[in-house]
Amino acid sequence: MKLLITGGAGFIGARLARTLLARGTLAGRPIDRLVLADQFAPPSDLLADVRVRGLTGALLDHGAGIAAARFDGVFHLASAVSGECELDFDLGMRSNLDSTRTLLDALRAAGNMPRVVFSSSVAVFGPDPGKPLPPVVADDTLPAPQTSYGTQKLMCEVLIADMTRKGFIDGRSARLMTVTVRPGRPNAAASSFFSGVIREPLAGAEAICPVDAAVSHPVSSPARTIEALIRVYEASRDELNGRLALNLPSLNVTVQQMLDALAAVAGPQVRALVKFQRDERIAGIVANWPKGASAARASALGLMPDSSFEDIIRQYIADCRAQPDAHLTLKGLTR
Amino acid sequence: MKLLITGGAGFIGARLARTLLARGTLAGRPIDRLVLADQFAPPSDLLADVRVRGLTGALLDHGAGIAAARFDGVFHLASAVSGECELDFDLGMRSNLDSTRTLLDALRAAGNMPRVVFSSSVAVFGPDPGKPLPPVVADDTLPAPQTSYGTQKLMCEVLIADMTRKGFIDGRSARLMTVTVRPGRPNAAASSFFSGVIREPLAGAEAICPVDAAVSHPVSSPARTIEALIRVYEASRDELNGRLALNLPSLNVTVQQMLDALAAVAGPQVRALVKFQRDERIAGIVANWPKGASAARASALGLMPDSSFEDIIRQYIADCRAQPDAHLTLKGLTR
Repeated sequence: MKLLITGGAGFIGARLARTLLARGTLAGRPIDRLVLADQFAPPSDLLADVRVRGLTGALLDHGAGIAAARFDGVFHLASAVSGECELDFDLGMRSNLDSTRTLLDALRAAGNMPRVVFSSSVAVFGPDPGKPLPPVVADDTLPAPQTSYGTQKLMCEVLIADMTRKGFIDGRSARLMTVTVRPGRPNAAASSFFSGVIREPLAGAEAICPVDAAVSHPVSSPARTIEALIRVYEASRDELNGRLALNLPSLNVTVQQMLDALAAVAGPQVRALVKFQRDERIAGIVANWPKGASAARASALGLMPDSSFEDIIRQYIADCRAQPDAHLTLKGLTR
Repeated sequence: MKLLITGGAGFIGARLARTLLARGTLAGRPIDRLVLADQFAPPSDLLADVRVRGLTGALLDHGAGIAAARFDGVFHLASAVSGECELDFDLGMRSNLDSTRTLLDALRAAGNMPRVVFSSSVAVFGPDPGKPLPPVVADDTLPAPQTSYGTQKLMCEVLIADMTRKGFIDGRSARLMTVTVRPGRPNAAASSFFSGVIREPLAGAEAICPVDAAVSHPVSSPARTIEALIRVYEASRDELNGRLALNLPSLNVTVQQMLDALAAVAGPQVRALVKFQRDERIAGIVANWPKGASAARASALGLMPDSSFEDIIRQYIADCRAQPDAHLTLKGLTR
């Protein structure tokens, strides 16, 4: 089978690609071709696999090529992140809505009703001015996004449901929780600090936490997120049983619990590298995000959240140790 | 003040225009200019008013002009109807989503944060495959459109909420119920028969009802609908108290009750002109529509549904009698 991952050179995309290549099959069929579309080239380890091709450039420019390729399945992960969408409305509309339409129109034009997993987001939820969010948002909580990013994700969810109803594609929307711990540099996502406050201290660097320690949020490890994306892809329409958007499992934690876990796993001197310095812009965005989420429909597919934030940190440390630059990413770790 | 009505030459748009011109003011300000944008020219009685201008052509082509005009307020009623959107997916996306984006981008470019009332629809609601609709859909029922029309309306609702949050416009989305009795010819809306089964017999012609008599649906008279659009325009953000989309009031009636009302108002010989002949395409669309709606938030604005379907029919008859061609539209009426 022939698969496409948009955002395939990004953190989740590349990790999903590695997992799929190692499995060798998806939904019972061998993976013969895996195209990684992104604005930059995929990591060299992926390009070294004979099954992999890179497709570099803006998704908006690749509609005809994607239609002609007739993919059997797509993971649509490409997205501008919440912070940049909030700063530049037009960029968000173009990157998240128009690009998705280009992709979906191309998949429809291909005529083979490909399966599509769209990475939606917990950011579709938000409080009404007149009505606070429930403490835990469920699969069927009424979305009310309070960011342009969440708005664009919700618009795509609705469009994918309709195009699936029409028989153009076989789509489903997996609402990703905040994935942590992300490696690399901070990005423009308002949620970037949820990784930064763990990653930077482990690397021996100071980290700024822009929100209060009491802030609670639903998070998921990269491994659990990848596992969930694949399971949602492999689910039959009957298993999805209705609505095509579902919450992925989350561990609902406070920043305080995250930092306590960091101290427990890496020691108090690492924990001490996190300073609190409130950023009103970030804090304002995060204040409108859910404090926790439930995932009954994902649970019915057998998907479970991470068991503890300590486990999430240990997973990150193990991932770093498997990389050649482990000494750099774990410079702060003395035990 | 300067107002724009898109779909301003259509049935609701022209009637709204007449009501606004007769009032002379909106939200306490005199109406100096009323632009009626539509694919065809407005009725001549409207063009005869010195305050009225027509803007003919596709909304998609008028972005720059609308931006330059700096409207104080907009009623955005222009839309492809449900039946045609279901037959031609691309037409619906272009007419209902792309045109709305062109309009909203133009209003944002004008820079004066105009007030916008968007005519959304009860068609945003629908049953999940796994979960039937509640008997009555409320303001905060989770939308799950089962038509492309409803999907496009929902996408616009969400976009308008975000552009309002950003301060680009001052938007609100009024979910219209099925407006009946519409004058004129049947159109491609799947709901067209809700008017046809009353209008055609009153004109002495046979009418086909494509669904069972037991089908229940939320309806509203033209007069109540116009009244509600104006009230939603005039509502302050505080009065809206949260979510910017709300259900307009409806009378929830079965086709049987509609026909009983027709017999009561116009006599059994008029009622006898309605024949049942099931149309699977129409019946399939209607089966996924709500059987009734509630409108708590509209009610808090003082808006009430029609008191009975008899009243709706009497309103239609009175409207016809006020027109020069009353003898044609009421040819079936012998009392």
